Amino acid sequence: MILKYMLQYLIDDLFHALAAPGRRVMVERLAKGPATLSELAEPMDMTLTAVTQHLRILETSGLVHSYKQGRTRHCRLRFEAMDQLNRWIAGRKALWESRLDRLGELLDEDEAAGKKRRR
Amino acid sequence: MILKYMLQYLIDDLFHALAAPGRRVMVERLAKGPATLSELAEPMDMTLTAVTQHLRILETSGLVHSYKQGRTRHCRLRFEAMDQLNRWIAGRKALWESRLDRLGELLDEDEAAGKKRRR
Repeated sequence: MILKYMLQYLIDDLFHALAAPGRRVMVERLAKGPATLSELAEPMDMTLTAVTQHLRILETSGLVHSYKQGRTRHCRLRFEAMDQLNRWIAGRKALWESRLDRLGELLDEDEAAGKKRRR
Repeated sequence: MILKYMLQYLIDDLFHALAAPGRRVMVERLAKGPATLSELAEPMDMTLTAVTQHLRILETSGLVHSYKQGRTRHCRLRFEAMDQLNRWIAGRKALWESRLDRLGELLDEDEAAGKKRRR
């Protein structure tokens, strides 16, 4: 129960983190390899403060890990977090598809019953 | 370019729509089959107004379609919208994995070079 609650909390954070285009650009950059905060900020039309805030949201969601070395902040992607999203979507897809299967069976039964009647 | 902008807009909406646990419960319910607005609202600890607002956000994202028949609002899931998310995640995963492949190649080259040196 507690685990389910924690997982839900995590998924909220993941969806929220990826809902901003700027944060998706950062994830996209980090998918190609680690980067410093300044490297992340460089192509973005944002202040370093704004980028730092986005980074914080990405870290809360578990998607990004960062650490400071001297005055430089190094960031890397934790792709494992994305698998939570994949799992959630796949779970809903399974429900959806089993529903389509049931519909198909009903149609088959209906057709079979129709043939019987016509005989 | 316009298409890319539209797609980005769509993905923003999708991630945003799924970031609220209440909206995910509604998606989960609709994955099992169509439902009326009252059926959607029933298991939720929310006013009908709040549920209607959530429905509007789900409709904007393209995840849900609804129509009114008399006084009843019927809702159904449009699972196709979820595939946009899958595609986005899969795209990032491809970047990430090609990066891991490159790292693997570098390690192999390094090892081969090391063996040469040791001969």
